[in-house]
Amino acid sequence: MGGDHAPQAEIDGALAAARDLGVRIALVGQPDKLEPELRRCGWHHQGDRGIEIVEAPEVVRMDEPAAIAVRRKKRSSLRVAIKLVAEGHADGFVTAGNTGAAMATAMMVLGTLPGVDRPALAALIPTRAGRPTLLLDVGANSDCKPTHLAQFAIMGDAYARAVLGIERPTVGLMSIGEEEVKGNELTKEAFALLRELEQINFVGNVEGRDVFTGAVDIIITDGFTGNVMLKLSEGLSEMMIALIRRELSASVITRTGAMLARPAFRRIKRQLDYAEIGGAPLLGVRGVVMIAHGSSSARAIRNAIRNARDFVLNAANEKIERNIATALLDRKEVSGAAVE
Amino acid sequence: MGGDHAPQAEIDGALAAARDLGVRIALVGQPDKLEPELRRCGWHHQGDRGIEIVEAPEVVRMDEPAAIAVRRKKRSSLRVAIKLVAEGHADGFVTAGNTGAAMATAMMVLGTLPGVDRPALAALIPTRAGRPTLLLDVGANSDCKPTHLAQFAIMGDAYARAVLGIERPTVGLMSIGEEEVKGNELTKEAFALLRELEQINFVGNVEGRDVFTGAVDIIITDGFTGNVMLKLSEGLSEMMIALIRRELSASVITRTGAMLARPAFRRIKRQLDYAEIGGAPLLGVRGVVMIAHGSSSARAIRNAIRNARDFVLNAANEKIERNIATALLDRKEVSGAAVE
Repeated sequence: MGGDHAPQAEIDGALAAARDLGVRIALVGQPDKLEPELRRCGWHHQGDRGIEIVEAPEVVRMDEPAAIAVRRKKRSSLRVAIKLVAEGHADGFVTAGNTGAAMATAMMVLGTLPGVDRPALAALIPTRAGRPTLLLDVGANSDCKPTHLAQFAIMGDAYARAVLGIERPTVGLMSIGEEEVKGNELTKEAFALLRELEQINFVGNVEGRDVFTGAVDIIITDGFTGNVMLKLSEGLSEMMIALIRRELSASVITRTGAMLARPAFRRIKRQLDYAEIGGAPLLGVRGVVMIAHGSSSARAIRNAIRNARDFVLNAANEKIERNIATALLDRKEVSGAAVE
Repeated sequence: MGGDHAPQAEIDGALAAARDLGVRIALVGQPDKLEPELRRCGWHHQGDRGIEIVEAPEVVRMDEPAAIAVRRKKRSSLRVAIKLVAEGHADGFVTAGNTGAAMATAMMVLGTLPGVDRPALAALIPTRAGRPTLLLDVGANSDCKPTHLAQFAIMGDAYARAVLGIERPTVGLMSIGEEEVKGNELTKEAFALLRELEQINFVGNVEGRDVFTGAVDIIITDGFTGNVMLKLSEGLSEMMIALIRRELSASVITRTGAMLARPAFRRIKRQLDYAEIGGAPLLGVRGVVMIAHGSSSARAIRNAIRNARDFVLNAANEKIERNIATALLDRKEVSGAAVE
């Protein structure tokens, strides 16, 4: 019920996913809003075309403070849907609704995987190299400790191997200079921890200008910086597209040029398109939670459902859990030796 | 001696500035490198065309750690030039060299203005609205306290009024949500301080996607986040331009389209061009220090010199000093009342 184009984009995306991806979907929300739309798409009864409706009377609005939504709306579509996952009735949860409320509800209802202190939201960023970079955390934790960043690295690594199929993903730490001594207190301490994690392929600091070159597979940062980065990129892309549009329409000649160049612009758009990527997984919770952009189209929803399916089929959470446990073991040995 | 295109871009930029802007320039560096280039441009003797050479035998390389450069190279062009400012032989200093070393040397040799704890590097960011936004700090301080952010706001405000000619500039705090409760520990505490500063026009939090809309005149952030933002924007612009170039050259038709659209692309490039903007002032030091991009062209150098001249002519440092003093006075009254 939550996204900017809800429930139409969600319904169309769910129908496409059920048809193409071999998944069954429970649409959670107000039946009087969902049923007429579904019937218009040719759906007749519960389970028809792989879709059923699960009732939830309340809706969390996009602009609602997360804390209030979580506390007051016990019967929101968000919460009812996440409870389906918690109780084993669903394998994963996808939303284009209020991100803050979705994360807070997921943490509360599902809890974290053993050994994980803080879940992290992991976004795929399109790069010049063609294959995207995984950036985390992009907003689950505004204030992080070095150990949180180390856990993000382990989770991102496990996800990239299990779901993205990258064999030995490279991990970079977001900073403001390549040398180890560059950065803030947080990154300097995190650098030391990451270097000791033998299970990941840590390549050192990366800078803002390395993000879009695809130089590394995974970039680790705190949720404040990551969220600023994500929204800044969105704003800059929008500005550049608006600028190009305005300038190209300035004269008959440039308009003609723009018309001829249209296939090129279409390819560019596709390469930068967040709808292709789908949703961002919330890594570290006991369950599969996929957060899609508020303005998700039906295609973005379909792809977010595909991401959730891949997450489940590849048992990514088991791998995260195992890798976190291994790291804890390593750390215990190291600190044990230090104490003696 | 320091920039990527040194000394040619510096010499050409200095000659253009001396010719157009009514300033005299001391080029600080190795005479055997500078003289031949200057002579090739028609320069004959010290003072000719408003240009003289001041000898400095050492050069700080772009990739040299700032701390080592500052400690070891006492006769670097960087240090000799900043000493000219400290001793009153020059009104301002412009460099396209090693930013970290330039900032560290400026702080050490010039010191800070009374009441300023930390200087801040302030960059102008092109926006969709046509007039740029001032973002600070973009890299002088990796770890900031809330009071530092409040001082950045006062300095940015004074600079925008004095040099950019904005009458009552709006000030936003970089965060990850508009509401006061959104952000990290630092921004939440800084928000409370900024709201109490009556001399500035604080409009609350801004998000990453507001940066390029030109919604506010000044954006305040810590030097880590600001530096990430600056380099990320640079990387994304470069990726988009590379993508556009590649896709437009893919077929004869799109190539023809691109040719016709060339005037539009030229206008876009000009609007996003950092060379137009020139240099970023280091606010809060006792003197005028203008940091230009390492890859500065002659035009960028010329414009950075213009920025330095405007800084001097508008007595921006006196205004910063006065406004910082007023704020300190306010604070004393407030905290005095609280103590009683």
